[in-house]
Amino acid sequence: MAVYTDVSADDLNLFLASYDIGELRSYKGIAEGVENSNFLVRTSAGNFILTLYEKRVAAGDLPFFLGLMEHLAARGITCPQPVKNKQGGVLGKIAGRPAAMVTFLDGMWIRRPNADHCAAVGEALARLHLAGADFAMKRPNALSLESWPQLYNQAKDRSDSVQPGLCNEIEKELVKLVLEWPRDLPEGVIHADLFPDNVFFLGGGLSGLIDFYFACTDTLSYDVAICLNAWCFEPDHSYNVTKGRALLMAYSKVRALSAAERDALPVLSRGAATRFLLTRLVDWLAVPDGALVKPKDPLEYFRKLRFHQSVKGVEDYGGF
Amino acid sequence: MAVYTDVSADDLNLFLASYDIGELRSYKGIAEGVENSNFLVRTSAGNFILTLYEKRVAAGDLPFFLGLMEHLAARGITCPQPVKNKQGGVLGKIAGRPAAMVTFLDGMWIRRPNADHCAAVGEALARLHLAGADFAMKRPNALSLESWPQLYNQAKDRSDSVQPGLCNEIEKELVKLVLEWPRDLPEGVIHADLFPDNVFFLGGGLSGLIDFYFACTDTLSYDVAICLNAWCFEPDHSYNVTKGRALLMAYSKVRALSAAERDALPVLSRGAATRFLLTRLVDWLAVPDGALVKPKDPLEYFRKLRFHQSVKGVEDYGGF
Repeated sequence: MAVYTDVSADDLNLFLASYDIGELRSYKGIAEGVENSNFLVRTSAGNFILTLYEKRVAAGDLPFFLGLMEHLAARGITCPQPVKNKQGGVLGKIAGRPAAMVTFLDGMWIRRPNADHCAAVGEALARLHLAGADFAMKRPNALSLESWPQLYNQAKDRSDSVQPGLCNEIEKELVKLVLEWPRDLPEGVIHADLFPDNVFFLGGGLSGLIDFYFACTDTLSYDVAICLNAWCFEPDHSYNVTKGRALLMAYSKVRALSAAERDALPVLSRGAATRFLLTRLVDWLAVPDGALVKPKDPLEYFRKLRFHQSVKGVEDYGGF
Repeated sequence: MAVYTDVSADDLNLFLASYDIGELRSYKGIAEGVENSNFLVRTSAGNFILTLYEKRVAAGDLPFFLGLMEHLAARGITCPQPVKNKQGGVLGKIAGRPAAMVTFLDGMWIRRPNADHCAAVGEALARLHLAGADFAMKRPNALSLESWPQLYNQAKDRSDSVQPGLCNEIEKELVKLVLEWPRDLPEGVIHADLFPDNVFFLGGGLSGLIDFYFACTDTLSYDVAICLNAWCFEPDHSYNVTKGRALLMAYSKVRALSAAERDALPVLSRGAATRFLLTRLVDWLAVPDGALVKPKDPLEYFRKLRFHQSVKGVEDYGGF
């Protein structure tokens, strides 16, 4: 749930005066997104999403994110489109924050995905990777391997309060990851956060992808590993091989995974589980006991990591 | 910010199947309302608000609230209208919660109201009081005089941690209120929470009233006192007599205040300030230090109470 910065009607009217999208009819803060403040804005021309970028998003990265959304849409990926203002720009300022207006996408995110949803997201991810191939801008992944020891250091003194022995387990895994991490796999634009709440479905099919604010240039198959973590586990944290197979098969039909990419899936999946374990752990420890807003459970990703550590090869993911 | 209960697309589709309002296109939790969970729902037939009633709202009160919205709208008050399902009912169940679908109102709430806004809200409040006169249902005010000592008891042990001496000040005021509270003024339906975020404006005029979930049967002029507290103070908590005069004059043009009602405004205003001071204090003390969600500052209402204690008569409110 996220509206960190409120916006007054006067401020919003002033902002809208620089656009050709009609007159303001209503706006409401929406309880989605964890990094930015989002408003659903209705004007006489239709519905839009206004995003105010909060401090955790570097203003210098915004041209990458907004440019990527335009680039992908021009290549047939359905995602929110930055609306151009009268000067042709897509970035403005409101309430002291960088802000952009994007088109509104119909569709719902799926709380309980099935294998068909997993296949649809696998196909969409591969299409995204292909469509991003000729995107000229680069952005290093701020949350990749190199950043994990730093996150670990923020959390380690208190991580055993979440689960005894957690500190030691993470440290061992970090050492293994540094030694085993694949460094010569195909790279390109990755979404890096394609969780169920960032994928819309409508009328039985996938209708769009949202939230490109973790997108970056990194190993393409690492993005596949993130999706395996995000889509193919059950609520009890057990891995569902049918969902995994559906996702991997659908991905491969659009963009074939090389032998090296397939062999690397276990270590990439351990890395992805570690990345979300660490960021959730840091967020968890930052919130006092009894707070109204509970952050997401870091241990969910510890259990997923345990599964990946037990995996022998791609066949255990529903391989092919 | 409030989405306490999440809703899946499957659940929502099932719920919508009992309505004639088209097919689901999207829905988003909205960061408004503090008692209930609210979703902006888009269907092929338009926009609606879905409200899930959380535990703080008694299910037995829902027919009063929903019936009142229908009653008021039939008498020309613009407010959300409960949408009837195929069986003609307005109350359903989703995700284990009582739920209702209401029409979507265009308009924005005003973060920094001026005297014109205060006049508009005074007029709308008087119209609401007149329109409610023949509403057959009754609901006692659960947050009136009788409930305040109980709220005070919840807070008193720790209220001095918010401000030294606060406990004693509240206790003295409660004793005075019990002795001086007017008990023979005209009663009827009151909104009881007509704060700026519950009043929409569009195109320079007031466009609608929302959030009737504190509405009840109580002293009409107490509702005026609540609005004086909610609309006529500056951000530094000083009373703005121009705004107060605008509100009172506009109210009186639609529904004249009797001499007894005017004379009672200071004590009613002290009561209103005490009611919001107490509920905010209880909420404030329920939240641990450093929580992500900060409740509203109770001391804002202590400063307003101080003003009302200094008032000699209705003329100090911009009287007439």
